[in-house]
Amino acid sequence: MAGWLSEAHRVIRRCEELARFSEEAGRITRTFLSAPVRKVHACLAEWSAAAGMSSRVDAAGNFCARLSGSDPNARVLYLGSHIDTVRDAGPFDGILGVVLAFSLVEALAGQSRGFAVEVIAFSEEEGVRFGVPFIGSRALAGTLDPELLSRRDARGHSVADAIRDFGLDPAALPDAVLPATALGYLEFHIEQGPILEQLGLPLGIVDAIAGQSRFELVFTGQANHAGTTPSDMRRDALAGAAEWIARVECECRATADLRATVGALQVLPGVSNVIPGEVKATLDVRHANDDVRCRSVQSLLHQAQQIAERRRLGFGAEQRLDQCATPLDATMTSALERAVCRAGFVPHHLMSGAGHDAMILAPRCPAAMLFLRSPGGISHHPAETVLPDDVAAALAVGSEFLNGLEVTHA
Amino acid sequence: MAGWLSEAHRVIRRCEELARFSEEAGRITRTFLSAPVRKVHACLAEWSAAAGMSSRVDAAGNFCARLSGSDPNARVLYLGSHIDTVRDAGPFDGILGVVLAFSLVEALAGQSRGFAVEVIAFSEEEGVRFGVPFIGSRALAGTLDPELLSRRDARGHSVADAIRDFGLDPAALPDAVLPATALGYLEFHIEQGPILEQLGLPLGIVDAIAGQSRFELVFTGQANHAGTTPSDMRRDALAGAAEWIARVECECRATADLRATVGALQVLPGVSNVIPGEVKATLDVRHANDDVRCRSVQSLLHQAQQIAERRRLGFGAEQRLDQCATPLDATMTSALERAVCRAGFVPHHLMSGAGHDAMILAPRCPAAMLFLRSPGGISHHPAETVLPDDVAAALAVGSEFLNGLEVTHA
Repeated sequence: MAGWLSEAHRVIRRCEELARFSEEAGRITRTFLSAPVRKVHACLAEWSAAAGMSSRVDAAGNFCARLSGSDPNARVLYLGSHIDTVRDAGPFDGILGVVLAFSLVEALAGQSRGFAVEVIAFSEEEGVRFGVPFIGSRALAGTLDPELLSRRDARGHSVADAIRDFGLDPAALPDAVLPATALGYLEFHIEQGPILEQLGLPLGIVDAIAGQSRFELVFTGQANHAGTTPSDMRRDALAGAAEWIARVECECRATADLRATVGALQVLPGVSNVIPGEVKATLDVRHANDDVRCRSVQSLLHQAQQIAERRRLGFGAEQRLDQCATPLDATMTSALERAVCRAGFVPHHLMSGAGHDAMILAPRCPAAMLFLRSPGGISHHPAETVLPDDVAAALAVGSEFLNGLEVTHA
Repeated sequence: MAGWLSEAHRVIRRCEELARFSEEAGRITRTFLSAPVRKVHACLAEWSAAAGMSSRVDAAGNFCARLSGSDPNARVLYLGSHIDTVRDAGPFDGILGVVLAFSLVEALAGQSRGFAVEVIAFSEEEGVRFGVPFIGSRALAGTLDPELLSRRDARGHSVADAIRDFGLDPAALPDAVLPATALGYLEFHIEQGPILEQLGLPLGIVDAIAGQSRFELVFTGQANHAGTTPSDMRRDALAGAAEWIARVECECRATADLRATVGALQVLPGVSNVIPGEVKATLDVRHANDDVRCRSVQSLLHQAQQIAERRRLGFGAEQRLDQCATPLDATMTSALERAVCRAGFVPHHLMSGAGHDAMILAPRCPAAMLFLRSPGGISHHPAETVLPDDVAAALAVGSEFLNGLEVTHA
């Protein structure tokens, strides 16, 4: 692994170089097909040419660079991640997986292989510009809803406009779909959470992407004067919501690996001397097992209803998202585990609580994911970072994976 | 009391007539010295003349109508309340006390009295236009901070501008102060709470205006990804705030007559899939006994601190208001109690959780207050109402009070 450390430093430098291409001075912000994306593509095109790869940009704005196999009809293994960012992002979320892939391909130079490798830099994963994530990987999976093309950003430009403005043709989107013969998709990504750091491990093998439920809840009481209404005559919507938020925490403590979050709360009228008459709350529940998730959601909604009834509050809940868990490919994940072991690391398996491009591609081709430890668990923040030793570890594992790949012909 | 019922209906009609003078079509909104205040004054001036009263508007915009005593140097009993409103108000808050006072004065016609009666319609009590309440009664109490005159409204007009624009002279404000010989101040006001209705009583004698503490609290945690951060590694500011809000409720249940309210809550960043990193909360605590209030405030702040420490959250609290309780005058309140009994009602005593003009005048002259039942406890709302029988009861009590008044010469 020591052999990969200088390459790891180069990977980190490259990520930091690409981070300079931003829509906002002094911050990293790069949304779907915005101007700085051209500069990222130009840089990737240079790297591709230097590595003997052919490159192109597909109709969804994904940058694709291919190293052919010994056989021109060889099946293709896809490596990659996304190059868009949230607003005021860190320099590694997404980009690191793309840069790592280029280093792994460069290391293959001159080797005879029974497969081709294509690096994909997905154009869109975060959902910032159009409020819908995964535009890039949906195009490759063939699951890009045509209605999405008419969705507009804050300035009134549609997805189709953005594609055309970038010099691409929305009509060519069907050509972006992955061939049925694809060998598989492997994605390296920072964990964006604290688990690997807590365990003292550089890497984690992702078994599944958690399923997700999102709800908006409303507790309705009676707004009233804070000075004139005795406590036993109040119908305080916030007191009810607070009691329920404590139950959400209990549910997590009682259910292994459950993540449940009340992230937003709106209190009306929201005046210091008026008893809250209405509270709107969001609920986000995630688990790798859909049954566990759905049972917890039902329990939390039932408890909210009971609390509301006891307190003479109205209660309503509307579902905003119901996304099933996505298991990653067992065969590819086993191959990834063997590579982790051969590279000398502990093969720790975990669930991803966040969505990733691998989740979108999984129904179309075998997909696997390797997480790199996130120092401090920090992501979506300028302080987001990655350790050089962990990047070296990921390179070592990636190399073992590619070297161990057995290809059957389609 | 039956004799007062037709007068009660007249009082209610007069309140509804005055409610037509508003800044907003279809809603009752009348702020300090706004245009419709002139129309209210014109109406009150007409009633004054018909009742044989002399009237004037003082430099703070208070309308004052006097019925002289048999002796031109007789001491003066003041009756009144305020004629400004909150935005989208009901027709009785404040105004009812002014209209009732006119009816009581009319009933005195032709009687020989050892005292004069002055009805005061205070220009400002709600604090809507300048964010500071009690401009009218502060002028009479001699506690109008001169700095207040330069305070500006949303359109940049100062209090002094408003006074001048109404044709009055800010330099004459010292003339508005009540004489030291004032007999006392009696205010009739709707309860704006549910207690009298709950007890089935038309009237309540106010012993004291509650003291008030207001704080702004901040719980600081760590914003993080809702999908990737396990529950035992979270520093969720909202979960901490929710635990504390439950304690605020417990404190009220454990402390007789305590009112404690968390009315506003701001959750940051306030996104459904991000663990809340910061919560700002308001705390409003009221009690007629200042020691009880201060002990509860200390206990609630201490509990918040403990919760924050256990959860590894930051915690801070800033005081926004610390107003002592105001006891009303014992002698005048006893006289009011005798009047209630003579009129045939149960003399129920209660505390006012809201501030009133009587609270401001109490340090300057003996003050007493009588509450009328608020159906549904509703106030500061177009649905605010009052029962004709209760208004008749208040008239009967007011009449007994005036007839029983014993005057010692100053």
